[in-house]
Amino acid sequence: MGMQRTPLLMSRLIERGATISPNSEIVTATATGTRRQTYAETSARAHQLAGALTDAGIGIGDRIGTFMWNSSQHVEAYHATDGMGVVLHTLNTRLSEKDLEYIVNHAADQLILVDEDLVPIMESLQPKLPSVERFVIVEESKFDVATTSLPNAVTYEDFIHGQPTDIEWPELDEYAPLGLCYTSGTTGNPKGVEYEHRAQYLHTMTIGLTDSMNLSATDTLCGIVPMFHAMGWGLPWAALMLGCKQVLPHRFMQPERLAQLIADEGVTLSAGVPTIWQGLRAAIESEPDRFDLSKLQRLTCGGSAPPVSLIQWYWETLGVEIIQGWGMTEMSPLGTLSRRIAKHGDENRSIDERFVDMGKAGLLMPGLELDVFDDDNQPLPHDGEQIGEIYVRGPWICNEYFHDPQPDKFHGDWLITGDVGKIDPDEYLIIADRSKDLIKSGGEWISSVDLENTIVSIDGIQQACVVAQAHPRWDERPVALVILGPDAEVTSQEIVDHCANTFAKWQLPDEVLFVDEIPLTSTGKMDKKTVRANLQADGYVLPELRGKESVA
Amino acid sequence: MGMQRTPLLMSRLIERGATISPNSEIVTATATGTRRQTYAETSARAHQLAGALTDAGIGIGDRIGTFMWNSSQHVEAYHATDGMGVVLHTLNTRLSEKDLEYIVNHAADQLILVDEDLVPIMESLQPKLPSVERFVIVEESKFDVATTSLPNAVTYEDFIHGQPTDIEWPELDEYAPLGLCYTSGTTGNPKGVEYEHRAQYLHTMTIGLTDSMNLSATDTLCGIVPMFHAMGWGLPWAALMLGCKQVLPHRFMQPERLAQLIADEGVTLSAGVPTIWQGLRAAIESEPDRFDLSKLQRLTCGGSAPPVSLIQWYWETLGVEIIQGWGMTEMSPLGTLSRRIAKHGDENRSIDERFVDMGKAGLLMPGLELDVFDDDNQPLPHDGEQIGEIYVRGPWICNEYFHDPQPDKFHGDWLITGDVGKIDPDEYLIIADRSKDLIKSGGEWISSVDLENTIVSIDGIQQACVVAQAHPRWDERPVALVILGPDAEVTSQEIVDHCANTFAKWQLPDEVLFVDEIPLTSTGKMDKKTVRANLQADGYVLPELRGKESVA
Repeated sequence: MGMQRTPLLMSRLIERGATISPNSEIVTATATGTRRQTYAETSARAHQLAGALTDAGIGIGDRIGTFMWNSSQHVEAYHATDGMGVVLHTLNTRLSEKDLEYIVNHAADQLILVDEDLVPIMESLQPKLPSVERFVIVEESKFDVATTSLPNAVTYEDFIHGQPTDIEWPELDEYAPLGLCYTSGTTGNPKGVEYEHRAQYLHTMTIGLTDSMNLSATDTLCGIVPMFHAMGWGLPWAALMLGCKQVLPHRFMQPERLAQLIADEGVTLSAGVPTIWQGLRAAIESEPDRFDLSKLQRLTCGGSAPPVSLIQWYWETLGVEIIQGWGMTEMSPLGTLSRRIAKHGDENRSIDERFVDMGKAGLLMPGLELDVFDDDNQPLPHDGEQIGEIYVRGPWICNEYFHDPQPDKFHGDWLITGDVGKIDPDEYLIIADRSKDLIKSGGEWISSVDLENTIVSIDGIQQACVVAQAHPRWDERPVALVILGPDAEVTSQEIVDHCANTFAKWQLPDEVLFVDEIPLTSTGKMDKKTVRANLQADGYVLPELRGKESVA
Repeated sequence: MGMQRTPLLMSRLIERGATISPNSEIVTATATGTRRQTYAETSARAHQLAGALTDAGIGIGDRIGTFMWNSSQHVEAYHATDGMGVVLHTLNTRLSEKDLEYIVNHAADQLILVDEDLVPIMESLQPKLPSVERFVIVEESKFDVATTSLPNAVTYEDFIHGQPTDIEWPELDEYAPLGLCYTSGTTGNPKGVEYEHRAQYLHTMTIGLTDSMNLSATDTLCGIVPMFHAMGWGLPWAALMLGCKQVLPHRFMQPERLAQLIADEGVTLSAGVPTIWQGLRAAIESEPDRFDLSKLQRLTCGGSAPPVSLIQWYWETLGVEIIQGWGMTEMSPLGTLSRRIAKHGDENRSIDERFVDMGKAGLLMPGLELDVFDDDNQPLPHDGEQIGEIYVRGPWICNEYFHDPQPDKFHGDWLITGDVGKIDPDEYLIIADRSKDLIKSGGEWISSVDLENTIVSIDGIQQACVVAQAHPRWDERPVALVILGPDAEVTSQEIVDHCANTFAKWQLPDEVLFVDEIPLTSTGKMDKKTVRANLQADGYVLPELRGKESVA
């Protein structure tokens, strides 16, 4: 052999930021402002946390949970568990108690770090969590552990106090697990995706590519995507590797607060779901002169597709690039990204031409394979026309669920993503829909996502959600739920007419329902399962079928 | 297990450029101008070459040689051998016939691709190369194989003609070898470094990091560093992954020609040794209005340290950043890089402060470990003062030489680099010297590199080379060989006085010798071994010792 067989461990990457940029900052929002600490301090505290966990009997391969917002202590928990070979199970704070109970017990977490404000939820759950021996409460200033019913509770500061600040990390197998995230499926129990050192090492390197998120030490990164959602899209690791300044919003996610944080801290790159950027836009529009966002350069946007109109607004109003990404928990999560300048020559193309591509899911990251398949598992041509199931494979793609293999989610070594879409001749992936949200009408498919994006591009419309409703003749027909902006006056007919500019007649929604709210999933996506269930509970009937109910 | 165990094969990266940017160009300089082909054509031709090699009996693990300049066909050879699992042994065209004979026989190359202009050298060598069964001549337009004494010769175009353009690459072990490069050591036979898929995969990803070379699809890359030198610093692979435009100078390396090529093709990033950039500077200075270099952004500079004065000149005159790198064939080669903006906050520092750091070897790339050790193999503090041997380890670092382990070049799993240096409190590596070129005087070390950089910063001095000469009392004393620029008038005393501003009296050269030429190694570095040998052959004696020779 010619080259060293160094295992690809996260501990080899995540110490780098603190080493080369010890004074780079990690800023966390608080109830009254912000608090800040350096990378050197963060690394020292992470080593102390590892020492405390070791003393608590947690060792290589054991699982601990975090029930926490994005904060410096959450970064320390990532750092400590990576280094010591413990598996960090990040608990989604927005899950139902039923799902939380299931995932903590399924993972058999031995210890949970819980943010002070979330203690009441944990207290209510705790009697049903027999595997959890200890609760570490991440206090905001002071916290009296005598006031909680959580057994064996200790504050975070007491827990790590006095531990050494420079532990030597063990050598691990590069396939050793380091993280665990459950996806809240639409049917059945949540399924766990177990992340591994090697996979996350490669994913971290990918995030740092110029032609990916272009993350650099010089960035000030504000990860709004929760650190419990697909490991914060891997951003905490990439930041630890590069030493960029990090700004963490904790639980303070109101748009005005976020806008102020981004302005005050000179954020250059932020990351979150489209609803965050829609909210931020509204906050900026309502007070155009309040926030100085001149340092902001780009917003990475994932979870669901941002409307092109939103991409255009950020570029034209603020000179900010929305980088659309596509991926999922099972993909670590990064699959594709769509940049304003993505290929050689793009710098000479018109911005209108670029907006079209920025509205697509993007180009595949190096090292992954992806294709679109028909019902016989044959790959479809990249003609921008033919829609099929998207399969993906590669070194940071899940190959089975944690203690719950689910072989029907895989085809050979391909992950069946559950998204349907097409690939155009320029190799851009275009997502049509979640396969379960695609609307089948008269033997043809209608993309709910395409309809939603078209509706949202109308001035005055804040959000749109298109779902299928059963139809005796056509199988399914689309119905649109729409939230109007304040003072907006848009009629049903105007919406349908607007859609008719780009859609065939048979693809137009049968009805537009104006609503005040669209339910969201725990990861901030529109919850179409609940939308459909609500319509059913309300006895909704398609206009064409009204009065015929008793006939059927 | 949770994540797929996809082997890290170069074939997973190098098809990406042709897939996403099929029309991106690869431009090769010719005797009369340039020729150009697309990535799609290059990929198709690479697959054809693989088919032809297979038909010639070359299979997984076999070794073939290239005796070629940087050209589209050389890129095709990289691509084809990577895909099919063949080992590409890039032969340094500047090696002596004796060394070439040794390395071809040591590697047992079965076939050699040879550029038409280099056929005479190969004809002279061929009788001593029993393992080579076939020679493929890369013709410039037409070549009559009847005119060569090379046995079983075929032209490249005839060789690949009619082969399929889309071969499916085999699955390989990720530790399978893919390249072989011999270093021309100063003692003994050349030593081979065997590159592997996994190591080069990781190295390729690293080159694409924003905080590394920042290579992007939007770049127009001109790799001047020969593709036979540490696999062209890995740039051909990174370019194939990203799809950036490539500009290859072939054998046309005259500074004016390079400057014209860079201007005509809109090169944004080039890579080469300091002597190239010194030559380019002279060409630009002699005709300041001739070359439009407005698109050029950065020059990656390795092999030896560029003088700070050169870094300043490029920045102040052209707005071009010289990115100093440090590495070696045994390191794939990338170890450290020094960027103008490297850490958070650098963007706010003064350019003069940045020039100081840009003059250092730089910051360590993610995933590597590096330290400076004393004679007892203890790591030295990072105080910017204490000088020791530099050791490095990591996934793209050599762990033994090909069929020639050389255990004394390693300490445990560390590669002993043969360079001596120090690390400053900001974690910048500073190279003092090659360990064999460091000058030991009165028990203290003098860095020849530091003296050279100080001398070259004097106006009118083109190049400086400082070597040790034996001294009966002090062990060794420094002597400087200096090349003056045209019309420059600088005296020995002025040079010594200038050095006295920064060096202690005992560190100053005992003598300055004005010369017309300084011999270079096959990789373009100053050949101090030959300089010392020439001084000895000329009977050189230090000034202080003259007239005492017979007394000794």
